[in-house]
Amino acid sequence: MDATYEAWTGPTAGDTVGTAGELAVLDRIVRRLPAGAPLLGPGDDCAVVAAPDGRFVVTTDMMVHGPDFRWAWSSPADVGWKAAATNLSDVAAMGAVPTGLVIALAAPQDTPVAVLESFADGVREAVTALSPGCGVVGGDLSTSATFTVSVTAFGDLGGRPPVLRSGARVGDVLAVSGELGRAARGLARLFREGVDPQGEPSRATTVASGADTDPDVARQRRPVPPIADGPAAAAAGATAMLDLSDGLAIDAGRLARASRVTLELDADGPLDESAVHGGEDHGLLATFPPGVALPGGFRRVGVVVDHGAADLVRGGAPVPTTGWDPYADWDGAAG
Amino acid sequence: MDATYEAWTGPTAGDTVGTAGELAVLDRIVRRLPAGAPLLGPGDDCAVVAAPDGRFVVTTDMMVHGPDFRWAWSSPADVGWKAAATNLSDVAAMGAVPTGLVIALAAPQDTPVAVLESFADGVREAVTALSPGCGVVGGDLSTSATFTVSVTAFGDLGGRPPVLRSGARVGDVLAVSGELGRAARGLARLFREGVDPQGEPSRATTVASGADTDPDVARQRRPVPPIADGPAAAAAGATAMLDLSDGLAIDAGRLARASRVTLELDADGPLDESAVHGGEDHGLLATFPPGVALPGGFRRVGVVVDHGAADLVRGGAPVPTTGWDPYADWDGAAG
Repeated sequence: MDATYEAWTGPTAGDTVGTAGELAVLDRIVRRLPAGAPLLGPGDDCAVVAAPDGRFVVTTDMMVHGPDFRWAWSSPADVGWKAAATNLSDVAAMGAVPTGLVIALAAPQDTPVAVLESFADGVREAVTALSPGCGVVGGDLSTSATFTVSVTAFGDLGGRPPVLRSGARVGDVLAVSGELGRAARGLARLFREGVDPQGEPSRATTVASGADTDPDVARQRRPVPPIADGPAAAAAGATAMLDLSDGLAIDAGRLARASRVTLELDADGPLDESAVHGGEDHGLLATFPPGVALPGGFRRVGVVVDHGAADLVRGGAPVPTTGWDPYADWDGAAG
Repeated sequence: MDATYEAWTGPTAGDTVGTAGELAVLDRIVRRLPAGAPLLGPGDDCAVVAAPDGRFVVTTDMMVHGPDFRWAWSSPADVGWKAAATNLSDVAAMGAVPTGLVIALAAPQDTPVAVLESFADGVREAVTALSPGCGVVGGDLSTSATFTVSVTAFGDLGGRPPVLRSGARVGDVLAVSGELGRAARGLARLFREGVDPQGEPSRATTVASGADTDPDVARQRRPVPPIADGPAAAAAGATAMLDLSDGLAIDAGRLARASRVTLELDADGPLDESAVHGGEDHGLLATFPPGVALPGGFRRVGVVVDHGAADLVRGGAPVPTTGWDPYADWDGAAG
């Protein structure tokens, strides 16, 4: 067993998923999950979810121990929160209201059941805080040498067209909602101060350095995407939108290329380096027709201009729009 | 790299997901996947799928290298086929027509890109053979020390109520569709003849023993669930139905308990030991009102009676309804 687990759960008395068995584990975690209001919930071959306007949006995302999270830095509840939050954010980025999640989870057999219970608590806390009314409508429990979570989320467009990445028009206002740069600052601090002398993630140095209680580290563990601002943007007439998962620059590059425009960041705007290049905040980037009153937490950061030599510019200079590639860039470490 | 891969793909010239990078890998596999007819396919934060009757069914299932498949026994294309087929079968077991899949896949960085291309070929072959018109509408690529596939499938009930496990009534006819016992016979042969002297799965002994070309082994690798019989059963008035994933006995026990009835197998019926207890064929088990003409490939195997001392009986004797538990029963081996 990864002994780090007990730093989060306390003593588990050897009560593992392997000794408890699938049915007992399932029973203990399902009761902790938010039920939502599906037409049919877990327990049959499929769940049944309402799709009142005759369509639904769907997104899926897998989180893997090692490249995506470390037990030295994130608790099981943090992993549950983040798995739910990042998928809810993708639904919001289409302009849809989240209607349900399904979660597949594979854990090593020596994983304490308390770890899965805490994971479920984190899912519930995220859904309750970010998208109340949504629920976990189904799932699957498996075993694996690598702790792995796969979430699929659904949403209702409420009769509106989906807000794509490709709809930005020259003259539109570029706006963001949600925090920018905090999750990346938190991750940078963990890599700097939350490691042992060999550079491996360490629970002990994370606590001793004070990183454990850094509010930016809290945002890295538990991003707070502005879910309600997604449908609000759609209702306000947003022409393009996407979830800021990899950082404003990378994601702005995607929107610009899909829309065949250049995005020009305000030269004197409030965005610092970590706000432009830091990922994992899961805010929203959207474009609105000029003159539209920006809804919710959206604030202007730039404007859409004719496509030029670069996809993203600021003060006349190109801003790089590349970054993290899970296949090329993960170093194989876990911990 | 797991050298066994090259037994399936041939020389890969070191072209791995780690050297190719996410975008190139994605580009090479998406073109091999069936597109289906989503309202919006891959490429944005979410896909958009039609739900013409205002609801959709959803199921999710994770397949993990080690407990769920071995590269010595199954090719990457076989794993793709099975990942698609088993989820399509869950959709059919509600009486729904499959409308789309999303697939999250995590592979070690040294996995040849050819392995993922073959996986995609297997998904396409399964969907084309079993549920033409359905497609892969979205997905996620990640990296992991453990090759992991998570499929979520959707379906359309076509205005009918879902066929639950809980609707069987005393006097109903118990019927099955699809093959029974072949996948389990194939797996038993692999464990018997497809291993090295230490009992580890071996590509060499699988080929040398002839197991590699055994038609039952082919069914273990590529189950052929009778997808169209799911909606056909619903249209014919099936009162209860489920997918035979863990074997007739275990799955009949689930249906019996959900419906609070006992299922009585015909004493002189055609079911042998492997048909009653063998899993992974992904046929359908359903109950129909007496007198209904059984649709498609369904044939009678028993009758629903008042709930008695056992959930499943045959010739007056109880039939055990327990079996494989992934948390309790996997021995931790892969290969």
